[in-house]
Parts: sequence; C-alpha cells; structure tokens
Amino acid sequence: MLNFNYCNPTRYVYGRGEYRNIGYLLQPIAHKVLLHYGGGSVKRSGLYDTVVQSLQAAGVEYVELGGVKPNPSVELVRQGIELARDAGVEAVLAVGGGSVIDSAKAIALGTPHSGDIWKLYTREEQQHATPLPVAVILTLPAAGSENSPNTVLTHEQSQRKLGYGHDSLRPVLSIVSPELFLTLPPEQMAYGACDMLCHIFERYFTNTTGTELTDALGEATMRTIMQQAAILRRNPQNEHAWGQLALAGTIAHNNLLGLGRAQSWACHGLEHELSAAYDVPHGAGLAVIVPAYFEHVWRANPGIFAQWATNVMGVTPSRDTEGVVQEGIARLRAWYRELGLPQTMQELGIPAEADFGAMARAAVSVYGSRLGTDHLPGVMPVNTAAAESIYRACCR
Amino acid sequence: MLNFNYCNPTRYVYGRGEYRNIGYLLQPIAHKVLLHYGGGSVKRSGLYDTVVQSLQAAGVEYVELGGVKPNPSVELVRQGIELARDAGVEAVLAVGGGSVIDSAKAIALGTPHSGDIWKLYTREEQQHATPLPVAVILTLPAAGSENSPNTVLTHEQSQRKLGYGHDSLRPVLSIVSPELFLTLPPEQMAYGACDMLCHIFERYFTNTTGTELTDALGEATMRTIMQQAAILRRNPQNEHAWGQLALAGTIAHNNLLGLGRAQSWACHGLEHELSAAYDVPHGAGLAVIVPAYFEHVWRANPGIFAQWATNVMGVTPSRDTEGVVQEGIARLRAWYRELGLPQTMQELGIPAEADFGAMARAAVSVYGSRLGTDHLPGVMPVNTAAAESIYRACCR
Repeated sequence: MLNFNYCNPTRYVYGRGEYRNIGYLLQPIAHKVLLHYGGGSVKRSGLYDTVVQSLQAAGVEYVELGGVKPNPSVELVRQGIELARDAGVEAVLAVGGGSVIDSAKAIALGTPHSGDIWKLYTREEQQHATPLPVAVILTLPAAGSENSPNTVLTHEQSQRKLGYGHDSLRPVLSIVSPELFLTLPPEQMAYGACDMLCHIFERYFTNTTGTELTDALGEATMRTIMQQAAILRRNPQNEHAWGQLALAGTIAHNNLLGLGRAQSWACHGLEHELSAAYDVPHGAGLAVIVPAYFEHVWRANPGIFAQWATNVMGVTPSRDTEGVVQEGIARLRAWYRELGLPQTMQELGIPAEADFGAMARAAVSVYGSRLGTDHLPGVMPVNTAAAESIYRACCR
Repeated sequence: MLNFNYCNPTRYVYGRGEYRNIGYLLQPIAHKVLLHYGGGSVKRSGLYDTVVQSLQAAGVEYVELGGVKPNPSVELVRQGIELARDAGVEAVLAVGGGSVIDSAKAIALGTPHSGDIWKLYTREEQQHATPLPVAVILTLPAAGSENSPNTVLTHEQSQRKLGYGHDSLRPVLSIVSPELFLTLPPEQMAYGACDMLCHIFERYFTNTTGTELTDALGEATMRTIMQQAAILRRNPQNEHAWGQLALAGTIAHNNLLGLGRAQSWACHGLEHELSAAYDVPHGAGLAVIVPAYFEHVWRANPGIFAQWATNVMGVTPSRDTEGVVQEGIARLRAWYRELGLPQTMQELGIPAEADFGAMARAAVSVYGSRLGTDHLPGVMPVNTAAAESIYRACCR
C-alpha cells in the first residue's frame, strides 16, 4: 500500500424525506444560493417546489439555472458563473444527478476564478481560488459526484470531455433520499450501476500490492452494487434496494476504496472519447469498453483478476487461472446483459467505420499531457495502438 | 436501514515516515499546541525528539504534558486543561494510543468549557463550547480514537469509566505510520485487534434490517482484522500487516460501518465496569465478555449471527443454525486463544467472588441514565439480571 492523505468532509444526509430539510441544512452555509438543475423532471415530480419551499421557509434566498444536459457543457457553466457573480450567491445547490452536480462544481469553481474555467480542465491554467461550497440533492445515483472531488465537463465545440479534480470540490452537503429514485427509467439505473462498478474497477485493477483491506472493502461494494442493481432490474420500485445502491455508488467514488493504491482510469479515459464524439450515455459506453479492456490487459496481472473473479463474481477458485478470469468476465457480460446494457459499438450507435484511431490518440493524449506518459495507466500500459485495438474489439 | 447524518472531516495521513511532517501539517491549524503523551516509550523510541524537531522546524510552539496511563484519568485531564489555558494553546497534539487520544480530546473539550469536565461524561452537564482541534500521531492501533468522535475517561475515586461523544471531537488530523508499531508487545496487538473487532460487533449485531452494504463492508473489515492480527501474532515485525490492521481499526470505529444502523455497545458497557473496578486492559476484558454475551443473546436474532458465522468465520452454511452459530463462536474463541487473550474472569485476575451484581447494575445504569431504559441495547435487551448472568458465565 502507498502512502496517502485523505480528507472527506462532506456531510452526508441519508434517508426518506431528508431533502425536505435542505433549507435548514443550508442555513449555516449560505444566505443565497444558485439553484441548479436539469430538465423538467424535477419540476414534474414536485421536487423543485419542495426545495423552493424549504429554502423560503429557512430564509435562504436563491437564483436559479436549469437546463443541464447529460455530458454537461461549458457553455451553460459560463452562464451559471455569470449569474452566480451577478447575484452574489454564496453556494451552489445542485438538484440532480452527476451531470448537474459536475456542472454545479464547475460553476462553484469558476465564480471566484479570474481566468477561463475550461482552461482549468485542459490544464492550461493550474491555480484557482477556493470554490464556492456545493450542496447536493441527489436524484440519480450513478456518478458518485455527490461525495467526490471530481467534475467532468464537455466542450461541445472541440468535442472534448475532460475531468478536473480538487479536494475543495467535494460537496459540503449531500442529501440522498431513496424515494426520489423510484421513478427513474430502467436504463438510467443500469447506466448508473455500471458507472459505479467501473469506479471501483479503476481503483481495484492495478499493480499495487498489500491492499488487503481496500481489496476486501471494494469486493464487498462491487457485490452489493451487482446484487442491488439486479433486484432493481426486476423491481424498480424497491426503495430499499435504491438506498443500498445509492450508498454503494457514493462509496465507489469517494476514494475510500482507492486509499494507498495506484489507480487506472483507463476505461473512463477510453469511454470519455465515445461520449464526447457520439454523445452516448457514459454508463452505456463503459459496458461496451470494460469487457474488451479486461480481455486485453488481464494477463499483465492474472492474480488480481482471478481474485476478483472468485471474490466478486463467485467463480470457483481453480489452478486454471485463465478459465477463472474468463468465467469472471463472462459473468460480468451476463450482468450487463441482464441490466439491458449494450455489448458492442454498434449497439451504442457507433459505426465500425468510426475513427477509432483518432479517439485512441485523444484518450491517450489526455493522460499523456497530465502524467507525462504515452499510455493509459493500469495493470499494463495501454498505448495508442492498444487503445485502438480495444475499441475495435468492441465492434464484433 | 435508518436515516443518518454523517460527517467525518478528519484528515487522515497514512504511511511510513509521515509523522515527520507533523509540524508542517499543524501549521494551518495552530501556532501553539499542547503535546500530550503517555509514558517513557515515546522518549525511548526517539519519536518524541522527532516530533519536537518537526514542530520547531515549522515554528509551531508547544507546551507538554506526559504521563497518560491506560484507562486515562480525569485528574491528569484537569492538569492538562489548566496547562492549556495558561499557555494559550490552540490545539492538542496527542502522540500515543487510545488512552492518550481520549485524554487529549478531554483536554480539548475542557479547555474552553466553563463547567466541570467530568460532568459532561456523567451527563450532569449537556452544553459545551467548541473544543480545541485535536491532532494525533498514532502509536498503538486499537481504540479507533484517531478518527472517532468518542472519548472514554476513568474517574478513579468513584471507579467510574464513562464515555462521551460529540462530532466536534473527531481529530482534525491523524497520522498513521505503521513502522511505529513494530516495537509493540504482542499483548498490545492482541488487545487492540480484539477492541477493533468488537467495535464492529457493536454495530453489526443489531436488529436493523436492510443494511446489505454496511453488513458486507463490516464483514470485510472483520475478516481483515482477524487475518492481519494472526499474521502479526506470528511475526510482529510485519510492517505491512500493521498498516492493514491500523487502517482496519480506524474504519472499525469511525462509524462508516454503523451508518443507518441501531447500535448495541452492550459488550463495551459490560467491559467498562471490569476495567473501572479491576483496571484490566479493555481488549482483554472484551475477549472474556464477548463470547459469553454472544451465547446469551444469539437466539434473539439467529439470522445475523449465522450470517456472521458464515461470512466472517468461514463456517459452512447449513440449516442447523444453532450449529453454525456455535461453530462461529468456537472459532472466535480459538482466534482469541491464538492471540493469547484471556478466556475467563480468573485469567483477568477477577475472582469468582467479585461483586458482579454491582457491576451489572452499574453497566445497565450508565445506559439507563442516557437512553431512559433499564437494559443494555442490542439484538435483545440485557437487563441487570442478564448482565450479571453474562458476567458469571465468564467465570467457568
């Protein structure tokens, strides 16, 4: 295990009805907030009205900006920054899923920042002031942004989807009320569960040794995600399963499971290029990328893949490591299928003639520019040729 | 799962040599600290000198108070409060194990408190000012106090050992460097591992249902504690195993594993009376109490005990629930034996003629006064008669 320095100060409020207390919980944080949300669903569901009433009852003023789309855009963030500055808000309240929260974090980061917000994502700029506090009412458990220090934005013009992370971007408050998830469509649940699982994969499948505790905690969380998502596939009205899935999704990405480990993020790197170029849902893209990635890299560290296959996928241990790993991957594919997730580029709507070479170069260069390498990290380095080959393996 | 509100803002710094950075890490927290520690071991080991040099190099002033003993006393805390006030310190730095940290928390709590510190523990007083920040360099992984909001003090005159908890008592900074544990005697490791395991038992063995994720996380942590402690029993010089055990001990008591669960604390309640009256090590007392407690209560919730026996103790599942649970308890006893822990009151040096009735009444009354009940909580209520019977079952 590697040395680490971990601080996760988010106040996490869980349970039925807790979102009704948002005004009271925000009182010590801000007198005036930017209320940020996505499309019409928060209005149709009545959540918007409840939130506004709670703010008003607590004397917390607000201005609002809706319209966040999946793969949130820099353009809306720029509007939000302007609005936040003009209104003098002291915090940003995200009511939504990962896209809304990531957009809110970008606004919180950009409001006191004198430079261009996108240049922080491209690393053209490195310094920023302390962001405004971000508070969250989660409406879609998936991205883990409610407790992570990360935000991902898409620059539509250049078709680039880039992440930024800083400890100061962990929300100060996150409210998770499982009854808010009961009306989510099945594919949203599936995309979310797939993303959560991959957040653990990116931390678990590395070459750091001596990580018994976080291995075991990660395996426990992976099993829980797979079990609870399967329950929800059969019964989307199971509020209890939603609660377990949401909590697992938070833990999957708050970096508890990454403590003292080298991390990969190769699958996310590969997927972001699909989302940026074809606007596919992140979770759907991951379901296609992950098995092909596993098959490409597992021989570089058969031990960790066999451990995963037995401890998470329930494969009977045996000396036939390849058989164990392949059965683990087969069971993962079966779970994706059970959740109705796509299996190929074609099912994602990406043609076999797509420019996978360009996407491979883009995926690798994002990491290259940050880490000074010519590959995506993980159990084995994935260079541009390997990345293209993984993309092409998804076309069968 | 129950609703919950969780906030754990401790900055947790893990790894070889990290304690050397204490001065730098304290700079943003305080200009002057009270350096608090126990006996001579921190001086003999050179840790004291390293800490002092690090403080000096960073320009952090300090006053000091050593002499904390196991089951830390109110008397020393009162001295510490006086010293902290006189010197105008802005934080308390604990260099030690649970006793030192608990004593440091009490000093941090008492320094700005106008009333009597012990009356907060007895609940005669309920209100207090914000405590001073507490920072920690851990020298003994056991009590989990390095990341918990709890402190336990002993009032020697009245032979009372009482706990107090408040979110503001979570350390702001905890440094865990596994090489500091290499010189610990084997019985300290055993007491520590026993305490950690029991911190999870107190959360795991309750009647809250629908806690799949924290069940699985708790089981993962319990297995890790048992495995790593067994490794350390064979080789106390295994720095890696110390690191895993220490991290597990932190997670065992920072309440991640208690999220949304009713909690018991019956074994701790029963043990505290042994420690208070006979000054036995807390971990040794728990090893005696826990199996007797399990045998007394398991029939009230055979399901959770059978789940524990299969998922943690490796018992083969079967329809014979009683057989599964008894085998789980037998394996737990075997693990305690393997670690060299006592099995009976006699081995603790407590005679069969001890006044178990009085201890039972005291244990139950501590909870009674706090919760307004006439029993210790858990899978079944343990009233005074049951408590006495558990104590007596430990005498065979």
